[in-house]
Amino acid sequence: METQRSRCPINLTLEVIGDKWSLIIIRDIMFDGKRHFRELLNSGEKIASNILTDRLNMLEREGIISKKSDPGHKQKFIYSLTTAGIDLLPLMVEIGTWSLKHRDVDPAKGKHAEMLVKGGKELQKEIRKNLAKEHLH
Amino acid sequence: METQRSRCPINLTLEVIGDKWSLIIIRDIMFDGKRHFRELLNSGEKIASNILTDRLNMLEREGIISKKSDPGHKQKFIYSLTTAGIDLLPLMVEIGTWSLKHRDVDPAKGKHAEMLVKGGKELQKEIRKNLAKEHLH
Repeated sequence: METQRSRCPINLTLEVIGDKWSLIIIRDIMFDGKRHFRELLNSGEKIASNILTDRLNMLEREGIISKKSDPGHKQKFIYSLTTAGIDLLPLMVEIGTWSLKHRDVDPAKGKHAEMLVKGGKELQKEIRKNLAKEHLH
Repeated sequence: METQRSRCPINLTLEVIGDKWSLIIIRDIMFDGKRHFRELLNSGEKIASNILTDRLNMLEREGIISKKSDPGHKQKFIYSLTTAGIDLLPLMVEIGTWSLKHRDVDPAKGKHAEMLVKGGKELQKEIRKNLAKEHLH
């Protein structure tokens, strides 16, 4: 991280993920199982290729994702969540909770968030276990 | 809100508070009792006056804060959280939780967040009640 504005806990998180794209990328890795650049480029929000590159580099630098060569695909990288990345799960759930209550969510797109919110801590534990299995090595 | 990129719940929240300043302002109103422009301008992160104006207008337009003339001060406005604003509390707590675990938080500045995290749902209920008393009329 470059020059921090302050070391307040709210600020330090915003300095990393306080933008319109970083958590969209985390969402796609965390809930849609996207692991490759091309897949992440296919977000419903139409992220631009240069922004995706920039954010992936930043998320890697900040220890939220890691990047490895994918042995199955030459010249391809596979992105994984780190423990810090997986630990963003409760924050994502709270974002979903707030949106379902206060934003005009597409009912079809809100189903997953509704399930997450209803599932509570138990479901989060389950998801966390699966993410750890798939992402941490 | 202008053109939405998608109506996914994660995206809809990011379209409003997905920047480096909006939640800093909410933090100062929510936890430090700041209610006037001049007070909010005095954030530890040194927000610029034009950015503060822009974000306050946006937060008001999006129904997260409300603005009223302050009868105690001529030519001054007082800013309040709406119910949607108060409902950002659990999200703020999760941001604090993640920072305490994964960022280099200033121990003095982290005390409040630590207390919030330890206090759990009970403390949140208490804070919510106080915020409602002070902000909703």
